[in-house]
Amino acid sequence: MATVKIRLYVDHPLGGGQSLPLNRDQAHYLFGVMRLKADAELFVFNGKDGEYLARVAKAGKHGGILVCLEQTKPLQTPPDLWFIFAPIKKARTDFIVEKATEMGAARIMPVLTDFTNNDRTRRDKLQAHVVEAAEQCGGTFVPPVDDLQKLNNVLENWPNGRRLMFCDETLAGARETLAGQSPGPWAILIGPEGGFSTPERERLNTMPAALAVSLGPRILRADTAAVAALTLWQSSLGDW
Amino acid sequence: MATVKIRLYVDHPLGGGQSLPLNRDQAHYLFGVMRLKADAELFVFNGKDGEYLARVAKAGKHGGILVCLEQTKPLQTPPDLWFIFAPIKKARTDFIVEKATEMGAARIMPVLTDFTNNDRTRRDKLQAHVVEAAEQCGGTFVPPVDDLQKLNNVLENWPNGRRLMFCDETLAGARETLAGQSPGPWAILIGPEGGFSTPERERLNTMPAALAVSLGPRILRADTAAVAALTLWQSSLGDW
Repeated sequence: MATVKIRLYVDHPLGGGQSLPLNRDQAHYLFGVMRLKADAELFVFNGKDGEYLARVAKAGKHGGILVCLEQTKPLQTPPDLWFIFAPIKKARTDFIVEKATEMGAARIMPVLTDFTNNDRTRRDKLQAHVVEAAEQCGGTFVPPVDDLQKLNNVLENWPNGRRLMFCDETLAGARETLAGQSPGPWAILIGPEGGFSTPERERLNTMPAALAVSLGPRILRADTAAVAALTLWQSSLGDW
Repeated sequence: MATVKIRLYVDHPLGGGQSLPLNRDQAHYLFGVMRLKADAELFVFNGKDGEYLARVAKAGKHGGILVCLEQTKPLQTPPDLWFIFAPIKKARTDFIVEKATEMGAARIMPVLTDFTNNDRTRRDKLQAHVVEAAEQCGGTFVPPVDDLQKLNNVLENWPNGRRLMFCDETLAGARETLAGQSPGPWAILIGPEGGFSTPERERLNTMPAALAVSLGPRILRADTAAVAALTLWQSSLGDW
């Protein structure tokens, strides 16, 4: 098996010859956990300048310095797709943001619904999880995670021209498909495991921007539904 | 929120008036963990006779009896789709079989590939996980899990008339889509996290039954790839 190079997210401008100071956590990870030595090579990205090959110039216990060599990938921004979801229990919520990152969402928006059973979502923790997922999946873009807000507020201020695909397994009424829909700004909304409340469902059904899409005859867990919905969208209207 | 009734898998024929003896584990779950009392109602299914409403006739510490009332769902068999995958580390492998069940695979086949990093897969544990997923997702069918076998053996004995969709992110060459493919017997093969070896890839590329499908420009973890591939297949050729 080919040796897989480490990919590290850094919050610093990238460019050939640029030196990158490492903070304590990064030094611990690279030199303590992964055992890199001086002159070892790895990939770095910052979500803005694409991916660069970098070399370890100085490895210390509490810090270090990398030097950027050449660009290995340009910045690849995902399509203009918001991913809106109701957080569930912790491990599954982590999975959901990981999957939204891998699947190419451009912005991740946790929302509080009438039946959401987790209102202690921490934005910084979810953002850290997104960074890890981007490191793993080879992406050069890091979707920003919003603060938790009320679904009703998000729908109240829904922007003109953005379509909303929503997946509610208990939804009565006609289901539609993405075939023939136009690309452009979209959002995907995944309900909580208990489904939407009646007022939420009524509101969604009367929004001109909304499109109810079926995810098949079986009930999916929220993290499975997230990947399935993103697959339908990416394969019809996205960058697959 | 509506009260969600428990769904229990039982290995016993179902029919109106039929009594169902419970084993120790089932009694512990229903009466110890879920605190059901005599006369409580729940759903039961056995993978063959659909789903029935049942009532607790006798609740004991080490056993009990349910009585079947009326059928609430007919048996719904999934399309003829095999799901073949290389087991990865334990938690992710559990996720993969859970997701294959939710997404409607008819048969689950763990395989050993050249780069598989887990050869200790236990069939009975995976099957138990599939049963749990079927209980959760409202399905009436329980896909059987095969014993772990070598991918090469599976390909060697590939049945006539069954197509094979495979997803290998590092695959060179043309990618195809499912549009215009005919339904009928299919299989989906998800590679291990290290990808396929060169001989495996060459073999797959020369199989007339095989179709290489892209899952987009980002690298997906094996469990994400499983849901994405099943979504593509189910939405084009399956029962969605």
